[in-house]
Amino acid sequence: MDAAEVVRAYWARTQGRDWDGVRALLADDLVVEWPVSGERFTSADAFVGMNAAYPEGWTIDVRSVVGDGEQVASQVLVPHVEHGPAAALSFWTVRGGLVRSAVEYWCTPGSERPPDWRKVFTV
Amino acid sequence: MDAAEVVRAYWARTQGRDWDGVRALLADDLVVEWPVSGERFTSADAFVGMNAAYPEGWTIDVRSVVGDGEQVASQVLVPHVEHGPAAALSFWTVRGGLVRSAVEYWCTPGSERPPDWRKVFTV
Repeated sequence: MDAAEVVRAYWARTQGRDWDGVRALLADDLVVEWPVSGERFTSADAFVGMNAAYPEGWTIDVRSVVGDGEQVASQVLVPHVEHGPAAALSFWTVRGGLVRSAVEYWCTPGSERPPDWRKVFTV
Repeated sequence: MDAAEVVRAYWARTQGRDWDGVRALLADDLVVEWPVSGERFTSADAFVGMNAAYPEGWTIDVRSVVGDGEQVASQVLVPHVEHGPAAALSFWTVRGGLVRSAVEYWCTPGSERPPDWRKVFTV
């Protein structure tokens, strides 16, 4: 698998709750940063453990995957039946078929109101 | 310029407040969606006008640009002297040297507190 295929497999296995399959795509010393919440996961076991423990109700909807060499970006919607819409914007480094690191920005579509000054520019 | 170079030029000219230079990189019928605020800009003139009108104090810090054919993703920090940190995670379509469309997620690093259940997984 090339780097983009590894990231596509990551999301497909995550949707399938195939945690052993997800773990097999990650380097042992994986580092994942979540800047919005200021969290940092410093091993594949910790990151997979957290994902497996995430309260159920979520769905993975992959909107785009862009890969160039070892760098991959993905745009994924992750709606949750209780908590509503969410999006994960992720920037991955993949080498030798394994994810080495990622920076993931989690945000909430529809959570902010545009300021008045901007309304003239939108329809 | 290839698609990734167009996006790099977009950000460099934006940082330079070179609005004519930015406009020259965009198709007339550009469509930009901002899912977090639910805004949609439907022309290059409207989008550039909005950027030029954005209250000053911001800096563009490009962290990564990933391009594959017509698709490009960029990870950009946009700190503002008054409003603090911000990040723009953008997924672009570029064809014929012009940006045709983009989906940009704006979020705020450090704005959320991790839930207690996740703390066992981070250091």
